[in-house]
Order: sequence, then C-alpha cells, then structure tokens
Amino acid sequence: MKIVLDGYGGDNSPYAMIDGAILASNKIESKIIITGNEDELKRELKKRNYNGDKIEIADAKEVITNYDKPTKAVVEKPNSSLVVGLKLIKDEQADAFVSCGSTGAILAGSIRFVGRAKGVNRPALATFVPTKTGVCLVLDVGATTATKPLNLLQYAQMGEIYIKKCYNIENPRVALLSNGTEETKGSDLVKEAYPQIKDSGVNFIGNIEARQVPFGVADVVVCDGFSGNVMIKAMEGFGVLFKDALKEMFYKSALTKISALLVKKELDGLKKTFDYSEYGGAPLLGLKKPIIKAHGSSNAKSVYHALIQAENFIKTRVIEEMSNILSDFGEE
Amino acid sequence: MKIVLDGYGGDNSPYAMIDGAILASNKIESKIIITGNEDELKRELKKRNYNGDKIEIADAKEVITNYDKPTKAVVEKPNSSLVVGLKLIKDEQADAFVSCGSTGAILAGSIRFVGRAKGVNRPALATFVPTKTGVCLVLDVGATTATKPLNLLQYAQMGEIYIKKCYNIENPRVALLSNGTEETKGSDLVKEAYPQIKDSGVNFIGNIEARQVPFGVADVVVCDGFSGNVMIKAMEGFGVLFKDALKEMFYKSALTKISALLVKKELDGLKKTFDYSEYGGAPLLGLKKPIIKAHGSSNAKSVYHALIQAENFIKTRVIEEMSNILSDFGEE
Repeated sequence: MKIVLDGYGGDNSPYAMIDGAILASNKIESKIIITGNEDELKRELKKRNYNGDKIEIADAKEVITNYDKPTKAVVEKPNSSLVVGLKLIKDEQADAFVSCGSTGAILAGSIRFVGRAKGVNRPALATFVPTKTGVCLVLDVGATTATKPLNLLQYAQMGEIYIKKCYNIENPRVALLSNGTEETKGSDLVKEAYPQIKDSGVNFIGNIEARQVPFGVADVVVCDGFSGNVMIKAMEGFGVLFKDALKEMFYKSALTKISALLVKKELDGLKKTFDYSEYGGAPLLGLKKPIIKAHGSSNAKSVYHALIQAENFIKTRVIEEMSNILSDFGEE
Repeated sequence: MKIVLDGYGGDNSPYAMIDGAILASNKIESKIIITGNEDELKRELKKRNYNGDKIEIADAKEVITNYDKPTKAVVEKPNSSLVVGLKLIKDEQADAFVSCGSTGAILAGSIRFVGRAKGVNRPALATFVPTKTGVCLVLDVGATTATKPLNLLQYAQMGEIYIKKCYNIENPRVALLSNGTEETKGSDLVKEAYPQIKDSGVNFIGNIEARQVPFGVADVVVCDGFSGNVMIKAMEGFGVLFKDALKEMFYKSALTKISALLVKKELDGLKKTFDYSEYGGAPLLGLKKPIIKAHGSSNAKSVYHALIQAENFIKTRVIEEMSNILSDFGEE
C-alpha cells in the first residue's frame, strides 16, 4: 500500500507533513509519498535524521493556495503538490491521498483526476463533529450545494458503511438533518428524501435537529452541502467563542489564574474533547480511491492521524463495498 | 397601547406570564391583556396582591401545545389563549402580541389572523444570537423553507430597519449566510439573492460563513429558514454541550469546586453572555402588527423583557416604515 501526502497544503507545510509522516512511518504498513519541492523535502528529512525507506518524495514545484480558484488551479497548476499527488492515484501508483490544502481544490482535483466510484451520483465531503458520547459523521458539508433526494439517500448509505467499517460501529444510527423531528418537517428536499432513506435498508432513525447532534443521538447525520456546511461552521465558531471566553476568564486576575491551575487536568480533557484534530481528517466519500482532507491548520499529530485513517480506509475496502450497496440511479 | 400576552404558552405558564406581566407593568406604558383561564389568572394575580389597572384578562379556556399540529390547532381551537389573543390584534383591540407557545402555531396563527404587512411576500422569524461584541439578528430561522431570492432581499430590508429602529444601531451591517465569503460562493438561492441585496440600498457587507457569526462581524444575518434554523440550533446545542462540560469539570472534586468559587463572578458573567433570555424574544417580521415569540422555557424575567421589546416595537413604528422601503414584488 502507498499513501500520497500533499506536502504543500495547509498552514504548517511542509514541516507538519514531514513530522507527521515520520511519526506515522513507525505505525503504518504503507509507504508514504510526499509531494512537493524535492530539495526542500529532502533537506528537511535529513535535518530530522530520517533514513528509513517508508517515505518517498515526488517532486512538485507548484503550490495551490486558498487564494487560487479551485477549478482553474487544478488545470493550470499541473505541477502542484496537489495535482501531482492526485495523478499518482489516478495512475494507480498509490492507493490513498491525504491533503491539508484548499478544500475546493481537493474536491475539484479529486473529481477530475480520481473520479467517482461506480454507482455514485455525487461524492460527499464528510466530517466528524465532537459529541457528548464520542463523534458523529456529518455529510455532505460542502461538496454539492444543488443536492437532490437521491444524493441524500446515497450519503446515508455511504456514511453508514464508512463508519461501520472504519470505526467498528456495529449498527450506526443514521439521521437526516431537518428543522424538526417529525417526518412531515423539513424543506422539500428533506421531505422527499425521508421515505427513500427509510425504505433503503439503512438503520434510519428519522429527522434530527442541529441542536441534538452534539448530544450523540446519531452516528451519521445526512444533509445537503449548504446546510451541513452551515452546521459544522456554526459549531466551530461557537466553539472558538467559548474557548476564547474561558481563556479570558482564567487570565483575568491572580485569583482566576489559581483557579485555572486547580482544574488544569480537567481543562486539558475539555480541550481534547473539542479538539477536531483528534478525530482525523474529513473523508471524501464516493470517489474511486480514499481521499482525506485534513484541517488546514493541521500539526504533525493531525497529519499522523490522517495517515492512519487513510490506511484504515484502504484496508477496510469500504469503496468496493459501497459500490455494491448503493441505490441505483442509472449511471449518468 | 395594549399588548396581549399569551398566558398559556411555554413551560412555565401561567406563572411566568403573571410574574413577568407584574414586573413589566411598572416599566411600560402599555396595558397588558393576559389570555387564558380567567378564574386561574385572577386567582394568581390576587395571590400576588396585584391590584393595579395595567393588567387585564381575556378569558380563553383552550390551550395549544407543542403536540398540536399548528395549522390545524389554530382552526380547531378558537378558544385557545393563542387564538383569542391573535383575534384581539386582528380586531384592533390591541397593538402587539407576545407568546412563549409553539413556534409553529404562533406562525400559522399570526399569518392567518393578523396577516402580512403591505408589500411583504413572506414574513420571517428573526432571532438574536449572542456574539463576542453583543448580539446579531438572524432571519429567517424557520418561517419559510421554500425561500426565494426576493424573500432574502426583503429579510435584509426588514432586518436592517428593525435593528436600526428598535436597537438604535446607526448603520447595521447586513450579511448573507453562505458556505464561503466570496460573491461566487453559495447555493443557487444565495448566488441569485447576492446582487439583488447589493443593489438594494441596504448596508450589505456580503457573504458570511456561520463560523464568523459569533464574532460579531454582522448585525443582521440573512438566510433561508432551513439553514437559519440549522445554524441557531447548532449554536444552541453546542452551547448546552459546553455548559454541561463546564459544570461537570467544576463539580468533579473538592479541588475543582474551590476553583469554581475563585471564578464565580466571571462564570456568572459568562453564563449571562450565553443566556438567550437576556436578549428578549424572536420578533416575527413582515406581519401587520408586532408579534414576539419568546422562548418556551421563558421565566418571568424573559417575559418581562419580551413585553418591553413589544412596546418598543410598537413605539418605533417599524412596521409602517418597513412597508415604505420594501422592494416591490407585485402584490400576490
């Protein structure tokens, strides 16, 4: 097995990628191919005294940034670390791809170079959100905004099998995001998708409101890419607001600083619960090969987690299984 | 001026309503008409030694609950505290309406009995969310899920004038909720509404992501009722999750309890910031008269705030002004 790691996506590239790859190289079976400026990558590996054979480098001199227009960039920057990496997947020289780069460019590039898996109408970007009892997979969070009922049905099927296979959840509870829990609630899209998911064989627990998601009532939450994006970003923003407020509270005076010391252990635990990097990256479901989008601010540990997640994604052969069970729509 | 208060909506009815009304009666000019079981309401007022002339009672023996189907209930329960109240507004015997009852029933009843203001295509339910710098008005959060670009434009206009007039914000910043900040980002609905809002004379600051909302970058956030509902409920749920986690942290041991004592003042401040009841209820914008939906779990203080908000809504004559500036759509 080989995993391609985009060496030049994200805020801490290429250092977090190199450190993350070295960390993972002791843990996973796969070889890791880092794409990017060969001279720099080699120099950094040498600096860290890495001389194993699990990490390879594929030269790529260009970089796609968040300022590039995604669909344009993946065409006009063929020598970017992202496109060089995706082409290795396309040419079957590697089995999975991990990047901390621009979500839009990863999406556009993956659809263009890797392509949809058999039977998939629209791929979905899935992400984990922390809950009271663990985590919950939410999809789609932004791959498609013009979502059809069929897409929601396929997201339910893809999400269920991914979380079942890769996270060993026996009978994951799949819910549909709506503005009320009753079957009759929701947008036209939700109302149309509801009976289709209900009849699909998925372990469907019905509609769910966004306020229930943090309490762990579902393992998979299905939604259109627009409202899914709104939901995870609302949680993210509110989380940062809270963190800032806590920080301010504990830094206010000598007394509050003592207070912080007394709950240090608990605060660390709290921080860990709400630390997205602990849960690995966001898988792109519905493509021919495993693609993981890790957070742009990923550090070495997050990259390490994403690489482990990618190997797990390959080993569990989720994609083959997905294509077998997906509801048919008549290939486009 | 007269304000109708639904005496039998919400978890703490009718006690929170009676206490809230008595509190408000010393603060506002308006008379307050509480709808509901006359005998019980009179008895409760007597128990509290209220013998002023600012509170009246309108008898209504039925109650609409959250279990009732809204559109059906407002027809089949003509003697409910909600419908009796709304009919007082319709018959111009009162000027504003406050209820802590079922959102769906308030919406359905208001549209049926009070009706849309001149020039309004679809009314919007607007709600306040706490931010780092104050509050932000989000609309629509659930009145309509089949939203058209024109509706978003009118929400922008209605939200701007409401916050300007009722909250004295000189030049409120109006933003459009999207899944990216660029003008080209968003669902088809958002992309179509963007130029219309931009050209409308509203102080439009462009697209905003849900994660930015808690940081106070906008005073008014415009969205379709489905994703608006998702956003505020995601924030609400994540807020409760955080509160629970904090509570657990501080109650863990003798040491953590001491820690809590040391930051007691700051914790109270934090709690206040994230306490929705401080900001009053959710105004229904676009109806002929001011209608305020207060939280179902409202206590006397929240009811008091909602009554003050309602009087302010009447006094500022926002509705008349709204009808003058709304973009024309050709009355249906």
